[in-house]
Amino acid sequence: MRNQNKMRQTGCPVAFGLDTFGDRWSFLVLREMMLKGKKTYGEFLGMNEEIATNVLADRLRHLENEGIITKSRDPENRRSNIYALTDKGRDLASVFVEIILWSGKYDRRTIALKEAVDKIKKDRKRFEASIRAS
Amino acid sequence: MRNQNKMRQTGCPVAFGLDTFGDRWSFLVLREMMLKGKKTYGEFLGMNEEIATNVLADRLRHLENEGIITKSRDPENRRSNIYALTDKGRDLASVFVEIILWSGKYDRRTIALKEAVDKIKKDRKRFEASIRAS
Repeated sequence: MRNQNKMRQTGCPVAFGLDTFGDRWSFLVLREMMLKGKKTYGEFLGMNEEIATNVLADRLRHLENEGIITKSRDPENRRSNIYALTDKGRDLASVFVEIILWSGKYDRRTIALKEAVDKIKKDRKRFEASIRAS
Repeated sequence: MRNQNKMRQTGCPVAFGLDTFGDRWSFLVLREMMLKGKKTYGEFLGMNEEIATNVLADRLRHLENEGIITKSRDPENRRSNIYALTDKGRDLASVFVEIILWSGKYDRRTIALKEAVDKIKKDRKRFEASIRAS
């Protein structure tokens, strides 16, 4: 589990970023929102990496507390919630792009997916804009 | 502790990046190398975030296994090791820059350190070059 209350007090911007969005499951939830347009708990639960229900609930609460996502009632289904990125969340698009480019260069596995890498190489600005619009 | 053998097999470049360098302690060790020019176990142990010895040893081994850093004997002290970034490690400079910029925008705490943020805003290319030269 992610450690709670672990915002480190050193003032370092790298540590701040890691403590805010940088645990791996949080980041994968953001990927589902940014790259796949997912919006609901049920949709996140279906991610390929098989996130556990308690971990997903914890990370959604964490990201909401950090002001990176918002939660609101689905107007079409009042028993369901819709999650959306805030500006603070959308501004992580550049971090995503750099991680994808780095992985595209160094992931030699045959299973490596190149679609996002190729899109960024072709038109980075367009790709970032599409993430921000998610 | 970081989970061992947790390289996820979905082929996603975001997951690959996170599994390779994205646990928080690994990233802080890289920060010590890139931004502070540290090279030895003893120097890393002195980081402000107070890393535990077993965690530090684990992360150094992990980063070496992933080809992000190399370890060699210190020619001036044969009981000590020198750690250095590989090209694969240096190529994370862009990821660092984006995280620092994002944190610079959103860390409202009074303890937030702005030095790196200001340097990047002033001359990003120069800052990245200085990281790569570390």
